[in-house]
Amino acid sequence: MKQLVLSEWLLTQLNQSDFPVRMPNHRRIYEVIRRAITTQILSAGERLPSTRSLADDLTVSRNTILAAFEQLLDEGYVASQTGSGTYVTYNQHDGFSKNIVNNNIAGDKSAVQSVESNAENIALKHEDSIGLSKRGLAACGAIKEYQSPVRVHNEVQPFTPGEDDYAGFPYALWRRLLNRQWRTPDPALLDSSHDGGYLPLRKAIADYLRVSRAVNLTYDQVLITSGTQQSIDLCARLLTDHGDCAWVENPGYWAARRVLEVNGLQLHPVNVDKEGMAPSTKDYRTTPRLIYTTPSHQYPKGMVMSYGRRRLLLDYAQNCKAWIIEDDYDSEFRFEGRPISSLQGMDQNGRVLYLGTFSKVMYPGIRLGYLVVPPNLVESFKSGLYELQRPGQVVIQAALADFIEEGHFASHIRRLRQIYGERRRLLQAALAPIATVGARLSTVDSGLHLVVEFDSICDDVSVAELASVQGLRVYPLSHYCMGESTEKGLIIGYAYSATEHITEFGSKLAEVIQLALRQ
Amino acid sequence: MKQLVLSEWLLTQLNQSDFPVRMPNHRRIYEVIRRAITTQILSAGERLPSTRSLADDLTVSRNTILAAFEQLLDEGYVASQTGSGTYVTYNQHDGFSKNIVNNNIAGDKSAVQSVESNAENIALKHEDSIGLSKRGLAACGAIKEYQSPVRVHNEVQPFTPGEDDYAGFPYALWRRLLNRQWRTPDPALLDSSHDGGYLPLRKAIADYLRVSRAVNLTYDQVLITSGTQQSIDLCARLLTDHGDCAWVENPGYWAARRVLEVNGLQLHPVNVDKEGMAPSTKDYRTTPRLIYTTPSHQYPKGMVMSYGRRRLLLDYAQNCKAWIIEDDYDSEFRFEGRPISSLQGMDQNGRVLYLGTFSKVMYPGIRLGYLVVPPNLVESFKSGLYELQRPGQVVIQAALADFIEEGHFASHIRRLRQIYGERRRLLQAALAPIATVGARLSTVDSGLHLVVEFDSICDDVSVAELASVQGLRVYPLSHYCMGESTEKGLIIGYAYSATEHITEFGSKLAEVIQLALRQ
Repeated sequence: MKQLVLSEWLLTQLNQSDFPVRMPNHRRIYEVIRRAITTQILSAGERLPSTRSLADDLTVSRNTILAAFEQLLDEGYVASQTGSGTYVTYNQHDGFSKNIVNNNIAGDKSAVQSVESNAENIALKHEDSIGLSKRGLAACGAIKEYQSPVRVHNEVQPFTPGEDDYAGFPYALWRRLLNRQWRTPDPALLDSSHDGGYLPLRKAIADYLRVSRAVNLTYDQVLITSGTQQSIDLCARLLTDHGDCAWVENPGYWAARRVLEVNGLQLHPVNVDKEGMAPSTKDYRTTPRLIYTTPSHQYPKGMVMSYGRRRLLLDYAQNCKAWIIEDDYDSEFRFEGRPISSLQGMDQNGRVLYLGTFSKVMYPGIRLGYLVVPPNLVESFKSGLYELQRPGQVVIQAALADFIEEGHFASHIRRLRQIYGERRRLLQAALAPIATVGARLSTVDSGLHLVVEFDSICDDVSVAELASVQGLRVYPLSHYCMGESTEKGLIIGYAYSATEHITEFGSKLAEVIQLALRQ
Repeated sequence: MKQLVLSEWLLTQLNQSDFPVRMPNHRRIYEVIRRAITTQILSAGERLPSTRSLADDLTVSRNTILAAFEQLLDEGYVASQTGSGTYVTYNQHDGFSKNIVNNNIAGDKSAVQSVESNAENIALKHEDSIGLSKRGLAACGAIKEYQSPVRVHNEVQPFTPGEDDYAGFPYALWRRLLNRQWRTPDPALLDSSHDGGYLPLRKAIADYLRVSRAVNLTYDQVLITSGTQQSIDLCARLLTDHGDCAWVENPGYWAARRVLEVNGLQLHPVNVDKEGMAPSTKDYRTTPRLIYTTPSHQYPKGMVMSYGRRRLLLDYAQNCKAWIIEDDYDSEFRFEGRPISSLQGMDQNGRVLYLGTFSKVMYPGIRLGYLVVPPNLVESFKSGLYELQRPGQVVIQAALADFIEEGHFASHIRRLRQIYGERRRLLQAALAPIATVGARLSTVDSGLHLVVEFDSICDDVSVAELASVQGLRVYPLSHYCMGESTEKGLIIGYAYSATEHITEFGSKLAEVIQLALRQ
């Protein structure tokens, strides 16, 4: 690309793009150039304009450009050669698209995917010479198979599932609440968290869950963890042994599967239907020690588990002494209709472990989640939590307790629900044309992503690839499946994209889908 | 105890005890009453004085007493009956002392202790009916076998190993550094940490380790974890498989052993001598995949690994393709002599993973540590870290980067070194008399605890028990051993106790030891 053209193009991107309002200029410039590199607009070896001329063209200070370049240098996207300027060194996009295509697991026919067999598949693709273990390969390989690689994570594009918008987070209020704790610091707040977490936070969560989710609990059953991964990890370690069978929903949450796999569990996929997780005769031949499910809003497809299915699952768990993990991952984002009660609230036998997270309502880096355990497991889980994870950040727990108790949490959720609800409606409208090519848009009215389902003949991986080349990162539904996937479609996140761009990006995505499905 | 007597006794305790200067009155009163309950000064069923009379006797406001009582009520130490007052409901100490005595592992003769066999031992003592897994039992049971139970953790007594004094932490400065981040919040700081941690912190740590610990690294090899447990966990998961053999030092760090055990490793204890970890012919019959060691300051005995032993270990690891975890857990607290270089710095083959923590220098609840990995493992570890632990708290990482870069870290360490060095000297002086009964005080001049060694005929568990009854929580050396322990002695932490009380408490402990060893 010619250098003047590049400057002009950068300028358009800076103004047009979907960045959070508060994003500083140097971050925007860095991001735009990086995207240009990862989407091959700039290719390896190409020279960037000088910082001075770029500063002139974009009418920003030279320091702003220098800051952006420095980060690009630091991260190895560009290299500078004394006297001759700055060059693009790296093109990630190539690597990424090849991985997506090569690692498509749709061809894997085995229904039960053990850590070992899965790791062996991945080992074939990895250089084994560096000496990772099988489960280590599974843990790392997971990233390439199930989601966009970590290395390009910063390059979040519109519609990336799992990304939220925290630009509107009430920073000033939160800073005040944190300062309140730091101003009169109780030494106990600086210690690690020994007894399941900060007591007022556990009480606040118990009150919240009792009222809004019909969870049946006392505060003593609430443990503060550092998030969903850690909650699932703790359950797997304390309640299962290596080689035990775990039922997971199919399609389902790959990140939960990873944690279970790394703990040596034999994952058995159970298909979902309109009523949620739907165990069949074949499934009952296995004896699960653990059942991982998302009854309020199946991940990723969104249906609510029916009453009958809930009863069946609870009775089955009681009969075979299995534990149920109920992941209520986005219960806050229900846009219409009355809230759905938790599975835990129906459980008479203490077989359900209920978990939730603050990452989506507060901000991802807060790393606080909660786990509600049956009364007779409380002491063991407190011990195990402390012994295996040594939780801390009690100051933040205390600020969060105040945030909830003083009503900020409730009003922040209301605000987010409004914002995300609007984005959802706009996206649904923009995607309406895809009905003409036989793609079905899910009608579930909650959560932070939409599901589009295709006829199974269609290769959803290539459709997602096409969209990605257009700067729209959506995930193929088949990537959420284990074994041979009959489910084809797209998972489209709308939480991250600015409201004013949803219609434009949505229409672009609709075009991509129409183009792909017509072929 | 008569109520007036109780008030008087409480008053003495409030003034005499070893609380941090900033501890509020209600916390002190709570703590003193709790200690009275856990040490059986107050027994179950006993009535506490009324809040009004106690407020009068202690000359504090009634609200202060109410706050203390409320916490005792919350935690179940006392219960109130309308009209008749507040009663002690619970006596933990009984349970605790019995556990320590019954669970003494000195009688266990097997050298290699697998998760299964260990868990089975524990299972015998546990009620299995609640349905924990074997590894879950191992994780929870660990607490009772290897350290004071979590439930009495708040009852930290003088000399509890592993407890630090963070009353002197520069709160105001730290709040200012955090506020700096929150005032101009970069959205990236609120995200989870995708790429091994906050870059400026990784750079600051790399600079620090290069200079002060002769670690051989670039900043890219530094990953920010949420502490030592998580660092070891990540290494175990990415580098070993279920059933692999891991060498651990004997005696050694039980918390590291727990994490390795829960990951299904076969732990093989390797004895230590004056030169550190000392593998024998018997040990070489096993083939470790992982070697966990503390070369700079063996935990808990304190010796430095000799040059010859370092060479031997590095060569052996290279020959059998084992990984070495070098836990440099308290390298900051070296009071005399020149710093000792890291094992990692001598490694030519990229077999060493080096780890450290900020819990001891900053405050335990900060939950930040670091892991330095060989260059060819960087990408896999970044992926695994993100995928398995989803790290975050980038704001705190940013504040910590400033804390280090602006020189506060170095001066804070200097200050702590001075404080802890003085406590060490006072304790050594106070314990000098124990030489007359054949107890040897270690002369290693670094770290945060002292080691006293007994003749092996002596039962160190009972000595620790005797001290604990006197309000001095020290740990028996045999609890740090696997298999039949020939090592008897005490581990005495001095970091937590206020300097002005060390001599008094130390003399009391010396008396306990003399009394016990004379019998």
